[in-house]
Amino acid sequence: MADEWATFGADLHLELRGQGLRDGLMDALREAVRSGRLGAGVRLPSSRSLAADLGVARNTVADAYAELVAEGWLTARQGSGTRVAPRSAPRRPVPSRTTTARPRVGRPTYDLHPGTPDLASFPRADWLKAARKALLAAPHEAFGYGDPRGRIELRTALAEYLGRARGVHARPEHIVICSGFVHGLMLMGQVLKARRVREVAVESYGLDLHWDLLDRAGLRIPALPFDERGTRTEGLGALAGAGAVLMTPAHQFPLGGALQPDRRAAAVDWARASGGLILEDDYDGEFRYDRQPVGALQGLDPERVVYLGTASKSLAPGLRLAWMVLPRDLVDEVAAAKGAVDWASSATDQLTLAEFLASGAYDRHVRAMRLHYRRRRDQLVAAVAARSPRTRISGIAAGLHAVLELPPGTEESVIRTAAFQGLAVQGVNRFRHPDTAPTMDGLVVGYGTPSDSAWSGALEALCRVLP
Amino acid sequence: MADEWATFGADLHLELRGQGLRDGLMDALREAVRSGRLGAGVRLPSSRSLAADLGVARNTVADAYAELVAEGWLTARQGSGTRVAPRSAPRRPVPSRTTTARPRVGRPTYDLHPGTPDLASFPRADWLKAARKALLAAPHEAFGYGDPRGRIELRTALAEYLGRARGVHARPEHIVICSGFVHGLMLMGQVLKARRVREVAVESYGLDLHWDLLDRAGLRIPALPFDERGTRTEGLGALAGAGAVLMTPAHQFPLGGALQPDRRAAAVDWARASGGLILEDDYDGEFRYDRQPVGALQGLDPERVVYLGTASKSLAPGLRLAWMVLPRDLVDEVAAAKGAVDWASSATDQLTLAEFLASGAYDRHVRAMRLHYRRRRDQLVAAVAARSPRTRISGIAAGLHAVLELPPGTEESVIRTAAFQGLAVQGVNRFRHPDTAPTMDGLVVGYGTPSDSAWSGALEALCRVLP
Repeated sequence: MADEWATFGADLHLELRGQGLRDGLMDALREAVRSGRLGAGVRLPSSRSLAADLGVARNTVADAYAELVAEGWLTARQGSGTRVAPRSAPRRPVPSRTTTARPRVGRPTYDLHPGTPDLASFPRADWLKAARKALLAAPHEAFGYGDPRGRIELRTALAEYLGRARGVHARPEHIVICSGFVHGLMLMGQVLKARRVREVAVESYGLDLHWDLLDRAGLRIPALPFDERGTRTEGLGALAGAGAVLMTPAHQFPLGGALQPDRRAAAVDWARASGGLILEDDYDGEFRYDRQPVGALQGLDPERVVYLGTASKSLAPGLRLAWMVLPRDLVDEVAAAKGAVDWASSATDQLTLAEFLASGAYDRHVRAMRLHYRRRRDQLVAAVAARSPRTRISGIAAGLHAVLELPPGTEESVIRTAAFQGLAVQGVNRFRHPDTAPTMDGLVVGYGTPSDSAWSGALEALCRVLP
Repeated sequence: MADEWATFGADLHLELRGQGLRDGLMDALREAVRSGRLGAGVRLPSSRSLAADLGVARNTVADAYAELVAEGWLTARQGSGTRVAPRSAPRRPVPSRTTTARPRVGRPTYDLHPGTPDLASFPRADWLKAARKALLAAPHEAFGYGDPRGRIELRTALAEYLGRARGVHARPEHIVICSGFVHGLMLMGQVLKARRVREVAVESYGLDLHWDLLDRAGLRIPALPFDERGTRTEGLGALAGAGAVLMTPAHQFPLGGALQPDRRAAAVDWARASGGLILEDDYDGEFRYDRQPVGALQGLDPERVVYLGTASKSLAPGLRLAWMVLPRDLVDEVAAAKGAVDWASSATDQLTLAEFLASGAYDRHVRAMRLHYRRRRDQLVAAVAARSPRTRISGIAAGLHAVLELPPGTEESVIRTAAFQGLAVQGVNRFRHPDTAPTMDGLVVGYGTPSDSAWSGALEALCRVLP
């Protein structure tokens, strides 16, 4: 035991420098027990003699011993002194396969994946200004558990904004705040399943992440047919089992078209005739560059359309703030599903976004970002026209991504070449529904993702891999 | 149609005052179609004649018409003019039973429900100061989608803090941030279920909210026996099927005892011998008034204990921030379960809490609140001793609630009397596990909940209903 104490004492001195004497001693003793250096049943020196060894007050040692007895590390019995508590041997942790086998993939030099806005443009100072105003003015109850639908201040500001900017017919009491589009879709999946819906029709191409989520909720996800004018909503009537359809009417993801007026009408007609619901994913509806954005489909029939919007593209994904505008008879079910897992968004961010919207800072930010992304899209179009004149860019001038059509059969090799040169970019076939036959080759270029300093390099790298 | 236009024109003028001419006209037209005042197929006046009626430029009307055609409200065909789009009649929404039948319960004058801290004490100015420092210093990628485990800055600050204040053996890479204890428990329920665990033993008394959550995850929840010294962890071995146990070792909820050293050891021994896990709910471990808090059970064996802590009691539930310290081989499974539903906490709040911890503001706040709640508990104890000397207060001097024991058979009538006098308070039997026979009558008094101005009134109201 003498050797043990020598080592142990050295450790103790190391620990004792950094913090309170008692706490440092406790940490050192815990560590010695945990590591097995002090085995079960080993008798510790008396508090008097250890205190003398360490040059500390006896009470410090006695307190540390008493504390560790209370915590279950040591035992103290009259006549038997203080000992390490008897304990079965710790189990060796099984090394996790996923941890050890995780492949190390280098970060690409340039990232043109779609789905992320320019994070460098997050308006930190304006956000902090809104936070200060909102937090100092909020009632005390704002910091409590709160309404699962979200803060009334934010729902009120959103009702005004969405009506004005997106033609959404919203009242604050029909809005439920969620922590992202995916959260909203998960809640809708639960509610639809509880309503005995078995199928949710989806667009192809589309986001596999969303399909997986509906699939995990126990819903089948038949794909809608599409043609060069976009998703064929006329096909909805033929899907006898579909209780809902998930769509991106303002800017189809990823192909990039806007749903045509007659097909908007056909979708609403289907919903009215069948009692089905349209789940409108308005992920980037604020960003249109050639004209005013087309209003949301929801305005056509607020009782048949669930409108889902998000701050992830207009501000930043890190805020984890999104919103659902619900038909009246769905509000309670969605709020109950959300409340059942205590799944709420931060009150401070909700209050801040409410102030950000009400003060006009949100409008200013969206206008600035619209110019910013428009410039990027124009540069992309110009660079592709100059360097690869036969490459067509499909879709409307909108959003944060564009589809570059490639000669048939070349998509995979172009992506591989790009990866080899440090450019991360995705192909359209990654977004193809499993039931849909391949119809085109192309790249989905997220031009919002790179920072300003990386943008021209990313564009140059992209042009190099185009035919 | 002349009459219709007269009404419609009046509406238009109302709308047009408040916003841009084109947008105002669009809103008025949408509303007229939605309400049915302009029926399907109705032909609208030419843009020239409506512009003259309204005294606006013809282009304003033509733009509005074009926009509404794009949105699917109107149709425009050569030779047929602009008409309201043909549409099936909107379905009347079915009135929701839950909305219309919701009973209106008056708010009590005084609220002594446990579970909420004093919201008036949320340190708004210090929080904003930390937010400013953290947000201005954060890297751009902090505002992106991020690691499902949470921000590294926060996990690093928590590892240091939890080690120092709660004796938790934590490394940042073993911490997963979640949005509340319930979120963490839900993730653990999923992971345990996937590992083919079928039972999670729970304490009785305890929180039915947590039992329901485990039940919904498909887990059985046998209750552990207990006696006057607390939960009988020695009974764990007899529960052959239990793969985990959910406990509140520092301060049993609601009964208020601290788990005794031998029973702490017995719980860890069971976990080691059986390969089971202990889920340690350390909801108010920072608030102990008679001595230093007993360290977390997790320190005894970090590979067999999942430690769950939260900012909901120490700061505010509205932040939606909590943390799990996980055994090494659970980290990837929990992070995957969390990431699968994109369920993240706000990056801004995570960065702010990291700075709040690192700057020492968290320690200062906890110290101040400890004094605050200790004073309230002392006042409660003194008032009960003076006004109802035979009422015993059980449990240790800790946390935000106390249990007042009542004469057998009186609990229900005391709560009813209290409610009648505007005092909301809960009985212990509300927290009794369905498999446990009633053993006592009592009140669970949350003395942290009232604001300072309401506290003396709440205390007086409480004393009036005690025997």
